[in-house]
Amino acid sequence: MSAVLCRALSKFISVGSVRFSSGCEQRLRGSLLSGDVDRFGGVTVRDFPPQIKEDEFKDLLRESLGQWRSEGRVAVWLLVPITQSRLAAAAACHGFSFHHARRDVAVLSLWVGPGPDRLPAFATHQVGVAGAVVDESCGKVLVVQDRNKTQNAWKFPGGLSDVGENIGDTAVREVFEETGVRSEFRSLLSIRQQHKHPGAFGMSDMYLICRLRPLSYDINFCTHECLRCDWLDLAELARTTETTPITSRIAKLLLHGLEKGFHNIDLCVEELPAVCSAMFYQLYHRPLPEVKET
Amino acid sequence: MSAVLCRALSKFISVGSVRFSSGCEQRLRGSLLSGDVDRFGGVTVRDFPPQIKEDEFKDLLRESLGQWRSEGRVAVWLLVPITQSRLAAAAACHGFSFHHARRDVAVLSLWVGPGPDRLPAFATHQVGVAGAVVDESCGKVLVVQDRNKTQNAWKFPGGLSDVGENIGDTAVREVFEETGVRSEFRSLLSIRQQHKHPGAFGMSDMYLICRLRPLSYDINFCTHECLRCDWLDLAELARTTETTPITSRIAKLLLHGLEKGFHNIDLCVEELPAVCSAMFYQLYHRPLPEVKET
Repeated sequence: MSAVLCRALSKFISVGSVRFSSGCEQRLRGSLLSGDVDRFGGVTVRDFPPQIKEDEFKDLLRESLGQWRSEGRVAVWLLVPITQSRLAAAAACHGFSFHHARRDVAVLSLWVGPGPDRLPAFATHQVGVAGAVVDESCGKVLVVQDRNKTQNAWKFPGGLSDVGENIGDTAVREVFEETGVRSEFRSLLSIRQQHKHPGAFGMSDMYLICRLRPLSYDINFCTHECLRCDWLDLAELARTTETTPITSRIAKLLLHGLEKGFHNIDLCVEELPAVCSAMFYQLYHRPLPEVKET
Repeated sequence: MSAVLCRALSKFISVGSVRFSSGCEQRLRGSLLSGDVDRFGGVTVRDFPPQIKEDEFKDLLRESLGQWRSEGRVAVWLLVPITQSRLAAAAACHGFSFHHARRDVAVLSLWVGPGPDRLPAFATHQVGVAGAVVDESCGKVLVVQDRNKTQNAWKFPGGLSDVGENIGDTAVREVFEETGVRSEFRSLLSIRQQHKHPGAFGMSDMYLICRLRPLSYDINFCTHECLRCDWLDLAELARTTETTPITSRIAKLLLHGLEKGFHNIDLCVEELPAVCSAMFYQLYHRPLPEVKET
């Protein structure tokens, strides 16, 4: 962050004769904020004069907004370091609001183009993944009872995906962390979307359930998270009322798969190349005759 | 927000004889911040003394942190109004960082419990939904070519889900906004997860493709977003190189469904009651013999 602050002065445009002293005590008339223009006509400002006061920044931003509007810009983004947060208050006076914030930077945005705000929103969902570890040799599945959540309700172990973590990896990791059982990904079984999800900070939750194959069987469950952990008969889990509606439904689905073949309930996964980047992504859908199943 | 500011003083604990003047000019020794304690042992502070200066708040927060640590709290959340953003800079001096921010409030967090930070992360994914509108009578599907993205590549119309919007509703809305064609949701076909997605502000993207049935056929496409829009023969879309890998794959999947029956490729959807709230959620999975298909 300090590197950014050090670069601040050099990044400034001076359209008049006045230049900033590092203290920025003098009036800013004649100088404007400098930003990078993107292909959508938005301006992104990353550097701000160090030590500039709220009132001085309010004036500087007003003059800069006038210039950007005259240049036909449609949006302005301010990347404000947490150490200069006072500038966010000044920006709010001109209609800026928080687009998002992470760690030590807040991103403020303002639509200055014609018509309604067309800025893309920030992330709206957290992604939780559960793993249904099925022991096909005896028709049992690994289940837990949460310590903090619904009491006496059997469910599949699982938790939130880390940033950048693939669905199957989250399932295998969470199952091991909660139960001590090692497993491998077989397929994606189900997707649930829930809005205003408790614990999602007002946002939505995407909950995916994967079918996993056990690589170990001894239970050593995490007492921080779980009250109980056991291998339960699938038929019993599909019958019992001591579970959640979604667990009961997936138990019935797994029972159907166990009897008639998992190909009836599985989504296969394959890696495909991304168009806009050099990366690959995972695509889940029903198996195709000509497509290799995972 | 002003209502919050007005409530600030009344929400204060005074453990000494000193009370705040509304100007908060006097030293804050003896007074602490007041917060609500949650069931996980975290403290959430929503109200801050109006007009308090950065340095004064730094001292106040230091004293309050000492008190909370002595009470065995594990985490502290600060809900800082954008108009009081200078307080975020003061909080950063004590190790606070941005957990997230939306509109006119920044949420800062600090783990003060034993061991590693166990605070839940904010939303990590944006959710995009595309609609494959299939005219079963002639085996054609509705496709567009983006104005801003990959040129000459046919794809299914779609876009980002609004906060609180269901998957099928996003598909139907985006198809209409981009093409002018009205449709209805039939099934979920595919899920793709992509990390470090361009335009996702460093976060991940969950992209779902739905199968839709057309309710109208005349094209009136949005020239802001699309260069071209047409009803293309599914077999042709499955063959052509003028498309994205994911569109090509789903075209093959739809062709398979058209020939062998969509029940081979569909995920059905059903509403189930949420356990932790009075709400309902949508669950997608392969049809079960005893489960009504949508």
